[in-house]
Amino acid sequence: MDLKKKPITEPEVYLLLKEVGAPTPKYLFVKRGETPKWEIFPAYLKVVSSRIYHKSEVGGVLKVYSKEELNGKIEELSRKFPQAEGFLIVEELKGIEAFVGVKRDPSFLHTVGAGSGGIFVELFKDVVFIPISADREETLKKLRETKLIKLIGGFRGLRGNLELFVDFLEKVKELCRKKPEIEELDLNPVFISEDRVAPADAKGFLSPLPKRKEFRELPENLFRPSSIAVIGASKNPKKAGYALLRNLERFRGKVFPVNPKYEEVLGFKCYPSILDVPSPVECALIAVPPEVTLKVVEECGKKGVKLSVVITAGFKEAGRAELERELVEKAKNFRMRILGPNTLGFIVPSLGLNASFSSVTPPPGDISFLSQSGALITAVIDRANEEKIGFSEIISLGNQSDIEITETFELATRKEETKVILAYVEGVELGRELLNFLKRKPSVFIKAGRGEAGKRAASSHTGSLAGDYKLFKDCVESKGGIVAECLEEAFDVCQLLRVYGRIEGNRLLIVTNAGGPGTLASDYAETFGIELADIEPVKEELSAFLPPNWSKINPVDLIGDATSDRYRKAFNVLSKYEGWDFSLVIVTPQSMTDIPQIAHEIVRFREISKRPVVACLMGGHSVKLGIEILKSDSVPVFKEPLRAVKSLWKSKGS
Amino acid sequence: MDLKKKPITEPEVYLLLKEVGAPTPKYLFVKRGETPKWEIFPAYLKVVSSRIYHKSEVGGVLKVYSKEELNGKIEELSRKFPQAEGFLIVEELKGIEAFVGVKRDPSFLHTVGAGSGGIFVELFKDVVFIPISADREETLKKLRETKLIKLIGGFRGLRGNLELFVDFLEKVKELCRKKPEIEELDLNPVFISEDRVAPADAKGFLSPLPKRKEFRELPENLFRPSSIAVIGASKNPKKAGYALLRNLERFRGKVFPVNPKYEEVLGFKCYPSILDVPSPVECALIAVPPEVTLKVVEECGKKGVKLSVVITAGFKEAGRAELERELVEKAKNFRMRILGPNTLGFIVPSLGLNASFSSVTPPPGDISFLSQSGALITAVIDRANEEKIGFSEIISLGNQSDIEITETFELATRKEETKVILAYVEGVELGRELLNFLKRKPSVFIKAGRGEAGKRAASSHTGSLAGDYKLFKDCVESKGGIVAECLEEAFDVCQLLRVYGRIEGNRLLIVTNAGGPGTLASDYAETFGIELADIEPVKEELSAFLPPNWSKINPVDLIGDATSDRYRKAFNVLSKYEGWDFSLVIVTPQSMTDIPQIAHEIVRFREISKRPVVACLMGGHSVKLGIEILKSDSVPVFKEPLRAVKSLWKSKGS
Repeated sequence: MDLKKKPITEPEVYLLLKEVGAPTPKYLFVKRGETPKWEIFPAYLKVVSSRIYHKSEVGGVLKVYSKEELNGKIEELSRKFPQAEGFLIVEELKGIEAFVGVKRDPSFLHTVGAGSGGIFVELFKDVVFIPISADREETLKKLRETKLIKLIGGFRGLRGNLELFVDFLEKVKELCRKKPEIEELDLNPVFISEDRVAPADAKGFLSPLPKRKEFRELPENLFRPSSIAVIGASKNPKKAGYALLRNLERFRGKVFPVNPKYEEVLGFKCYPSILDVPSPVECALIAVPPEVTLKVVEECGKKGVKLSVVITAGFKEAGRAELERELVEKAKNFRMRILGPNTLGFIVPSLGLNASFSSVTPPPGDISFLSQSGALITAVIDRANEEKIGFSEIISLGNQSDIEITETFELATRKEETKVILAYVEGVELGRELLNFLKRKPSVFIKAGRGEAGKRAASSHTGSLAGDYKLFKDCVESKGGIVAECLEEAFDVCQLLRVYGRIEGNRLLIVTNAGGPGTLASDYAETFGIELADIEPVKEELSAFLPPNWSKINPVDLIGDATSDRYRKAFNVLSKYEGWDFSLVIVTPQSMTDIPQIAHEIVRFREISKRPVVACLMGGHSVKLGIEILKSDSVPVFKEPLRAVKSLWKSKGS
Repeated sequence: MDLKKKPITEPEVYLLLKEVGAPTPKYLFVKRGETPKWEIFPAYLKVVSSRIYHKSEVGGVLKVYSKEELNGKIEELSRKFPQAEGFLIVEELKGIEAFVGVKRDPSFLHTVGAGSGGIFVELFKDVVFIPISADREETLKKLRETKLIKLIGGFRGLRGNLELFVDFLEKVKELCRKKPEIEELDLNPVFISEDRVAPADAKGFLSPLPKRKEFRELPENLFRPSSIAVIGASKNPKKAGYALLRNLERFRGKVFPVNPKYEEVLGFKCYPSILDVPSPVECALIAVPPEVTLKVVEECGKKGVKLSVVITAGFKEAGRAELERELVEKAKNFRMRILGPNTLGFIVPSLGLNASFSSVTPPPGDISFLSQSGALITAVIDRANEEKIGFSEIISLGNQSDIEITETFELATRKEETKVILAYVEGVELGRELLNFLKRKPSVFIKAGRGEAGKRAASSHTGSLAGDYKLFKDCVESKGGIVAECLEEAFDVCQLLRVYGRIEGNRLLIVTNAGGPGTLASDYAETFGIELADIEPVKEELSAFLPPNWSKINPVDLIGDATSDRYRKAFNVLSKYEGWDFSLVIVTPQSMTDIPQIAHEIVRFREISKRPVVACLMGGHSVKLGIEILKSDSVPVFKEPLRAVKSLWKSKGS
């Protein structure tokens, strides 16, 4: 165990809670040999020792029914635990058993875990982690994902006071702010009744706050340079120094290859050193052996370069963390920032700027893609090109020796052309800071590395519940970010966010020409807790022109022989109806289905209804043209109803 | 409430359990006014009345600590419940609280529910439903999906005897077989300790077995006719009678249009009635108005037709159930079978036979697709054509007035050319029978109508009431079928099943040229409970030729500059290693990545390793050719790691 980690006992935790005015049970600490004055029975008698973490598992907790029993039981425990500092008598509480924990994560710092409690907390894992920066409303919203909320709302004769419970969580957050040395707290169970909330057990650990990386705001135009040097430029097509230069051929700014071996590379004049370049250089792409990087970075600094992109690999990931640190120190002296090392580089399509060794460049667009995996970038660009998705910028973070993903995220929120930020994340160092920027722009995260936490042996409930993935997901979601399960889902959600932003409301309208897919879509909606809008108020109006066997309910089944004209008429009625918040239009190719015309009608439906509309065109070749029409008019379109409904659900802001 | 539904009280349930030798708690039934002889304390005293279903919620359960208390409490309950038949004294049990229930479903008949019990059973829904046809092993396998299994295996000081619990479930199954009039049983909680399993509460309902549709085996060649009549053949391209005939132009058997209005249609000689056709007719496609169908079906019967496909809609789904019943009765007289009404028809690509009004025909293949939605069929064929997926047959079930999906399923299991059965299901009537055929061939189901919202949409569709989704999923899975969440997933899984059948083992080997996607794939594997194979025994051998920064663990990261040659060498080593059961090879397009060559190497890897290998080629245009190579060599290929891993997981047989 960490030597700096100091256990705190139950009465110590109660004292901490009292400091912020948080409720505790009625309790009395009894020193060895003392005779307690205690009148409330039944009560629990517990051994207090900083060396015993799991009291009940070693028989250190006894239930006491009367005053007569009490002294005898104290003697019993005294004999059993000669090392005990004393004993705690705690009243018996009743109510719903909740779990409340505190976990100080190196990245997100303090988070409060809350959910169903009791001995099965680790079995059902019905716990969410809320960062202490979340306000009351954000806390409540996240809490609604737990089954505890159903219990509190009333279940099988039990009922609790939700406001008091959230009050308690707010107090715990306050405690974390006041005592940052709290590393972990385990309050389990916390009893919630209709008029009271109080913990019935408590333990924890204190430790000094770990040293963290400092957030340093990036200058506005750091990734929009007007001049770039390629240090290590090469004529050998197998080298990164060749690919980098090649990709800069279409760049509209100045390009300076640097390599003492050449006079000229790919038609550009080449310089022996960056210091020999006759005009200022804002950005340097460095592709020289690791040993030479220090010298090169120093020269860049002297030249007044703002951003050094160290493409070279073989640093921390190869056991040379020291060299990496020196690189950063060197750069700091010149107020220069470093991207990488071990980065693919960055791309700003609107400037024709591909400052990376990726062979493919995406079209300009409104998605900013930040990635901690370089290999993923090439796959993403390739796929995005096929699906005609454009990017405002793509940044490969590499080893993040200096520039960290949170800093690029913050910068992306300031870019007007960026509508959505997509980030592939393996580990965030500045998690706490990241949370502060999530409200600024819609963002979608893919987080890798789920497994680690599960394998680590955890000493407490909180420790074992708060895996890295879980913590990341809960924290990011509670502050307004979206976490996608996979790349495909992330793309799907980006499609929606770039057009509609976070979606409001919860009432879905489904319009379809096929019953089966309509039923499936409504199944999925129910799974995600999305309501089906009630169309009763417009039923008559629709019946006036729809065939007699139309569905009469939502999903609005226009029947298999629906033409674009029937869709149009239905859309005219439905667009005037205020009883829905967003709509999914399903089209399957049947004999009368004029797909391109229907696609145009869907575009028009979106215009006249002024609400988010997405389409699902099921099929292959027959629906291709329809999909293109919808894409070119920025109507999000899917082939699978599940993906359409899931994307709507994920995009929901409230 | 159903008048035929008769409540049974706790002591009555215990008597039933005793009949099959299932354990009960120690208990004593006390009639009003009787003085009990009972010595075990604490105990529970409960009111017994067939009119009180939830005893504790009305205060009808009291805990009794001593003999002295007992009579007083009986008097208390007597006063409170003057209508009570008597009182039950039940010993207090200890252990893990499980839930055991019986639900007799109209389709699957008796199923046994088992999982975590106690008052929160409905909150955590940790229950699986096992059909009574499931054997001990199948029961145990399904049970392993519950968290109850973890509790029984030992959790926080509790532990239970799994064998005794499964014994108990077997006894409950036996009881269902012996007393089919049991409609519902609720044994909650059932206490599981290390040496005993017994229920602590019980209630239920009896009712007569409902009348069910009879399973009638379909003749071998029912959907492989050599002669077909189209009754209601038309020259009007907007009519089904035109589309049907048109689609038969390529059929290699005999085609006879029937319509008194024409001498000839689309170049075929036309007959006034099927009785006028000079040679035998095996199959009739009927597209005449509903009113005429009875007469037409009678004529078909007289002609000796084996299968009448009633394309015509406007029967049960339009409130004319009686007409539908008459149709079936009529057909039965002639031993003729009816597909539909309200069906799209059927397609057997290998015979050039499109006996449907779908405008598209898929290529021949090895998937049999059975669908309760006609509209879905056109979308599926269209997509399958694009993805080059072939079918051995496609059958649209329509209203299932006669031929039910289970009967077509059974028939498909007898077709040699069918390797996988894919079924879109809204409601199955012959669920119990279906379960008996699942082991014969790999099968994938998409089930619509999950909840309230779904049910509404389903009942307005083909007129079939959607059964309970959970019950369907659990029953089908426990007997060897696969239930996919959506059409896309179903296609994905079919890809695997048609090549590998159900996959054995649980150790996954991941080979990749990109760290990020490799990590994501291993995350997904962990989520699904798939182990990562240990590659320690071949580490040295791989290190001999892989670059020094290769991953050294599984996922085997060959590093971004991996060529087909590096993949080949790694495959050579890994194919000889027996420590993995199935493999996922990930390829992302990077500068050195020769995709088509790597695709060929993956095909070869599958050959030499003789185990299931699937590929994930991430990207767009760059990976197209590779995907085609893999598809033409029947290596399942995906673009998204999650879909690859999920498909492997879903395809696992054990």
